[in-house]
Amino acid sequence: MGIKYGMIGGGQGAFIGDVHRKSIALDAFAEIAAGCFSRSVENTLETGKNLGIAAERCYKTYEEMAQAEAKRSDKIDFVVIVTPNSTHYDISRAFLNAGIHVVCDKPLVWETEQAQELADLAQKNNLLFCVTYSYTGYPAVKHVREMIRKGEIGKIRFVNAEYPQEWLASPAEKSGNRQAQWRVDPEISGKVNCLGDIGSHAENMVSYMTGLRIKSLCARLDKIVEGRVLDDNASIMIEYEGGAKGLYWSSQIAIGYFNALRVRIFGEKGTIQWAQESPDCIDVFMSGQPGMRLSRGRDGFYQHAQSFSRIPAGHPEGYFEALANIYKTFTGAVAMLKAGRHIREFTPVEAEFDFPDAKMGMDGVKFINKCVESSAAGSVWVNY
Amino acid sequence: MGIKYGMIGGGQGAFIGDVHRKSIALDAFAEIAAGCFSRSVENTLETGKNLGIAAERCYKTYEEMAQAEAKRSDKIDFVVIVTPNSTHYDISRAFLNAGIHVVCDKPLVWETEQAQELADLAQKNNLLFCVTYSYTGYPAVKHVREMIRKGEIGKIRFVNAEYPQEWLASPAEKSGNRQAQWRVDPEISGKVNCLGDIGSHAENMVSYMTGLRIKSLCARLDKIVEGRVLDDNASIMIEYEGGAKGLYWSSQIAIGYFNALRVRIFGEKGTIQWAQESPDCIDVFMSGQPGMRLSRGRDGFYQHAQSFSRIPAGHPEGYFEALANIYKTFTGAVAMLKAGRHIREFTPVEAEFDFPDAKMGMDGVKFINKCVESSAAGSVWVNY
Amino acid sequence: MGIKYGMIGGGQGAFIGDVHRKSIALDAFAEIAAGCFSRSVENTLETGKNLGIAAERCYKTYEEMAQAEAKRSDKIDFVVIVTPNSTHYDISRAFLNAGIHVVCDKPLVWETEQAQELADLAQKNNLLFCVTYSYTGYPAVKHVREMIRKGEIGKIRFVNAEYPQEWLASPAEKSGNRQAQWRVDPEISGKVNCLGDIGSHAENMVSYMTGLRIKSLCARLDKIVEGRVLDDNASIMIEYEGGAKGLYWSSQIAIGYFNALRVRIFGEKGTIQWAQESPDCIDVFMSGQPGMRLSRGRDGFYQHAQSFSRIPAGHPEGYFEALANIYKTFTGAVAMLKAGRHIREFTPVEAEFDFPDAKMGMDGVKFINKCVESSAAGSVWVNY
Amino acid sequence: MGIKYGMIGGGQGAFIGDVHRKSIALDAFAEIAAGCFSRSVENTLETGKNLGIAAERCYKTYEEMAQAEAKRSDKIDFVVIVTPNSTHYDISRAFLNAGIHVVCDKPLVWETEQAQELADLAQKNNLLFCVTYSYTGYPAVKHVREMIRKGEIGKIRFVNAEYPQEWLASPAEKSGNRQAQWRVDPEISGKVNCLGDIGSHAENMVSYMTGLRIKSLCARLDKIVEGRVLDDNASIMIEYEGGAKGLYWSSQIAIGYFNALRVRIFGEKGTIQWAQESPDCIDVFMSGQPGMRLSRGRDGFYQHAQSFSRIPAGHPEGYFEALANIYKTFTGAVAMLKAGRHIREFTPVEAEFDFPDAKMGMDGVKFINKCVESSAAGSVWVNY
Repeated sequence: MGIKYGMIGGGQGAFIGDVHRKSIALDAFAEIAAGCFSRSVENTLETGKNLGIAAERCYKTYEEMAQAEAKRSDKIDFVVIVTPNSTHYDISRAFLNAGIHVVCDKPLVWETEQAQELADLAQKNNLLFCVTYSYTGYPAVKHVREMIRKGEIGKIRFVNAEYPQEWLASPAEKSGNRQAQWRVDPEISGKVNCLGDIGSHAENMVSYMTGLRIKSLCARLDKIVEGRVLDDNASIMIEYEGGAKGLYWSSQIAIGYFNALRVRIFGEKGTIQWAQESPDCIDVFMSGQPGMRLSRGRDGFYQHAQSFSRIPAGHPEGYFEALANIYKTFTGAVAMLKAGRHIREFTPVEAEFDFPDAKMGMDGVKFINKCVESSAAGSVWVNY
Repeated sequence: MGIKYGMIGGGQGAFIGDVHRKSIALDAFAEIAAGCFSRSVENTLETGKNLGIAAERCYKTYEEMAQAEAKRSDKIDFVVIVTPNSTHYDISRAFLNAGIHVVCDKPLVWETEQAQELADLAQKNNLLFCVTYSYTGYPAVKHVREMIRKGEIGKIRFVNAEYPQEWLASPAEKSGNRQAQWRVDPEISGKVNCLGDIGSHAENMVSYMTGLRIKSLCARLDKIVEGRVLDDNASIMIEYEGGAKGLYWSSQIAIGYFNALRVRIFGEKGTIQWAQESPDCIDVFMSGQPGMRLSRGRDGFYQHAQSFSRIPAGHPEGYFEALANIYKTFTGAVAMLKAGRHIREFTPVEAEFDFPDAKMGMDGVKFINKCVESSAAGSVWVNY
Repeated sequence: MGIKYGMIGGGQGAFIGDVHRKSIALDAFAEIAAGCFSRSVENTLETGKNLGIAAERCYKTYEEMAQAEAKRSDKIDFVVIVTPNSTHYDISRAFLNAGIHVVCDKPLVWETEQAQELADLAQKNNLLFCVTYSYTGYPAVKHVREMIRKGEIGKIRFVNAEYPQEWLASPAEKSGNRQAQWRVDPEISGKVNCLGDIGSHAENMVSYMTGLRIKSLCARLDKIVEGRVLDDNASIMIEYEGGAKGLYWSSQIAIGYFNALRVRIFGEKGTIQWAQESPDCIDVFMSGQPGMRLSRGRDGFYQHAQSFSRIPAGHPEGYFEALANIYKTFTGAVAMLKAGRHIREFTPVEAEFDFPDAKMGMDGVKFINKCVESSAAGSVWVNY
Repeated sequence: MGIKYGMIGGGQGAFIGDVHRKSIALDAFAEIAAGCFSRSVENTLETGKNLGIAAERCYKTYEEMAQAEAKRSDKIDFVVIVTPNSTHYDISRAFLNAGIHVVCDKPLVWETEQAQELADLAQKNNLLFCVTYSYTGYPAVKHVREMIRKGEIGKIRFVNAEYPQEWLASPAEKSGNRQAQWRVDPEISGKVNCLGDIGSHAENMVSYMTGLRIKSLCARLDKIVEGRVLDDNASIMIEYEGGAKGLYWSSQIAIGYFNALRVRIFGEKGTIQWAQESPDCIDVFMSGQPGMRLSRGRDGFYQHAQSFSRIPAGHPEGYFEALANIYKTFTGAVAMLKAGRHIREFTPVEAEFDFPDAKMGMDGVKFINKCVESSAAGSVWVNY
């Protein structure tokens, strides 16, 4: 396909960078050609070598990389940013200014204004900006979205979304777990921990599936494990524009739960449910009919949703395939721009270029900030 | 056993009265001997005849019945009240004044003061007062309570309780469903519909299992189906004394759900989950151990809990058996009082007399009133 | 209703007799009036006293009881036989000769000829004979039967039935478990243990649901736990008349399984599945449609099936209710005969008198004998 | 890593070839460098071009490819054969004679002698031979194997394995489904259809997990859909060496089932269950303990099993990752041989080189032939 990418972060000892590389490799959408994988030059060089990257394209800093790549005739087409949240803004800006498309981890940044600025910058430079809300890549999620758009369950009345985990139920940050250490550290994670890491996925998933816009919310961010300064459990009541209501819960202290994102959407005519840990299935309850379980590959997913599946029903597809689906549409869009098209000509998050974009990143930042505002004031209602 | 009971409500065309009669009959704990089954005398007489009750003990009004029975040497030992909520207070008082133990449906009454008065009256007259929170009768529920009391999951941190139903998702009250008509009618149901009917079960179940006392709450009562004046969906954030937090949701518009009461309790050391529709099982997740499913009759329920089971593991016990368990302890207590004991001598809701009592009824009334207060003020936090 | 019954077996220390008494009491279909509950006269007298039976109707032997009751003007209408298999034939005959209807536990007897004789005797004397295949009492089972009769899944092609249990996985008979002792003892249990106790339920359930008649079978009866002389695990391949095939498995050594009777029926147009441990649900898979889960009380059970339910969807009904349903139709038939009708006038196992009858008991005896014959000959095919 | 591979089959319009390519790409274990993707040269050239393969290495026939590659200094290290079963023998032999390692789809060949010959040829030439029983690649499967080897459930007593599917429930071969056409065609599929395609997976999975060796079996191969000359449903009773028993069932007419391979293993001390459609979980029932569910990434999988997982618990891994795990160990072994080691020095199917080998392929062929022999003789027992 001829598309090349670089990566910031993802050196040896890191985790998620390799997940991205594997997901991109699955379908051979793009090849890695440059990187600044770590603040340690040795790590970057070693990682680059293992990935078959030329030494001259293993960079000491992201600034250097952005500048050097910008000047190359064979420059990378896009960069994947998998560093802690506090660095997203600066790195993203550097690459957008270098004329390179950006894929950035979530939550995007800390402030809504920063998110807006990045979105505007991308737009101005005819560049794509993708925020890796990876769960939107599941075919079943895309089918749910289309069911709702087509009105299959009627007007939505109530949404119940939850994302419980167990991994911070004990003070793992005190026993040397580095991932735990930075997650609970406000210097690195910003204003929130649990809400930013996983509550934001609940918000994003509801928004992606239903298109509902939040009008006001009332949030309680709990610091349950002694000594924490950031939240590890969060409950949020929502009012959406148009009158629907919502209830979200995310938690890192729910022993027995791993990545149990689950969304239940109640409409006038029926109910739709989806859970990340059984991603191939959708439970549908239509008024007056027996409960139904839809399976990817069998039960008539809409053509767009089905196009993101690689294998017949009954052979599980998982997280790597979902993330690969993000890259499938993203690299498709990159290819069109390389071919001379302009982003004005196509609308992201539409059928063709259905990847989570800067707009979703902004929504996530706003959600986090509004929840913090509500909780800090005593869990009162705040308008959007 | 020689214990006799009467019933108010439960005539032909009604539903729950027969459920109570069957549950009492299952173990032959008591025999029906009198009744005022309907405001229609014909219905009362016909019902009484079918039940083999002497015509002279088929009464026109509950007042008449209370007075007449009080004078008989073979008077009923207790009365079962299965009439709409608005009548509970008057009927209960009449029988307590007649020296007859009372079993009353929930929610008990509309105001906390009334509940207190009934509790005091019973106490003063050495009478038992049972409120039929029937789900407390499941053996698994009793085992959960004992697990928590014994500290098996450590200090409780968070509770998530929900009770979704579908039966009022459409305006059934407009198409002749009488049960729906009175449920949504404030004249009969009082200040609340969904919250009183099923939200109160969530409150009661959490309280029964955990012993947690509510300190403050923030409730949103939604009127989702057009034209409703009472709630049909409710979300509540809770703070308990001692620092634990809770989140409750009840709904009558959740298409695909029947009586899906489910409680998830998160402690420092583990998680316990129970769901009414699979009442024989308990899911337990202890930190660092594989998830476990405990089954009634197999997995070492505590002796008290196990004593409420009638059949080995794998043969389902259901709602009738749970309700029968309420009557099992209640009639046991009645028998002891008949034998000359005084209620001062035993502590209700202890191992021996583990039935839902007036105190629980009062808690339920208070919960409803506090939720109404919070929601009416714009879903603000109110102290208990 | 005025129907009276007696019981053989079911004294103190026994188990299943009380289950029958409770199931009969649930709906007040009949009252107990006589009994010979044990070979110990003391036990019989004590049990009778606790049940409120007159001392003169607590009999020393079943023969005495049959003769004495036959002479009474208020004689019992039917007798319930809950003794070990080896006694069923003699006791049943005594009561049929005394003009008393019989309800007998399964497996009915040891030889097909005995079963036939009992069936003929009942017929000749205008008496009812019920064999308590209790699982046929579940409303969902009756709905499955009707779905199949109406051709909803088309011609049946294959049936997979299994009934695994764990309770004899260790040699419980050597550690004082009396139930285990008599089950594995050929003197009391006859030719088979596992196959007779639970394999026969699989055979009965398939036969009841589908109406399929066995043409030939190939059975392997395993004696897995060392020292057993009777089977504790059994696999059977079936050919039915008309070309369908079947595969049955029953086991008492399946650690983790309780009473996991499950039947899967594959037809030309769809599949139906039912499991005893979730008795309120039916899974239906129709070709080209999403999988469906039908719930009792909600999803349009046929009127006959629904009439056996006592409470709305989502409130579990269990084993007691299923057994009560056997007695519901049985006592209905008893009442009609008391009212002067003759059994020629109605066809058992039809909508009106849908209880498991002598014919089913005979089928069960034949199945066991054919399996024993096949297995003894080296697991070869034997014709029916 | 520098390992190169070629492929026979897998051109445009085919399916499984692409699945293999994606699985190999996921971890970048090897690069594709040559191919003969179709009997159509145009297809081969077009497929090769899309995969970035030099035109001179897109071959007209597999013979040509084997000879040409054998002579190159940069010859492919291994070949992946994804053609219909009837061609496996000839193609495999050609590449083994060319000194190229082979990965071949299953069932390997039609006759045990052919399988033996291929195994011997590989051995003689110091070459690896992998048969893609892909389900052995799931981490949970590897953990089950190790649990059993370590005696966690004690001596195995009984195994119940099944693999139902629905896709041939109707005569899809008559409505233009090409996959169905060749599956039911004895010219291409050989002696069996259902048994070879999926029954062999059940055999392989039991063998892989337990190490049990079959001693004798009794098989019934059914031709259920009218007009079929090969089986579409199969039931098999097994006796293993050492006394354990087994029961297998595979079906292509089970409406509602996709790839529902499930294995239940009953030992003296406990039971282990695994199902392909929930591949991350293992259900374990130990005698006298509550049932447990083990989850990949959380519940202490043995180190070897865990090393095949790429992402934490709760993020599903699926079929692509399982197949990639086959290639992980296979390419690891290829690399060691490239580095000068000899296959005598390491034992395949051990911790280090845990991929399904020629021995497993032979076992599968023998199983199929013995089942055919049994069924053809009237479903009698045949010795191994």
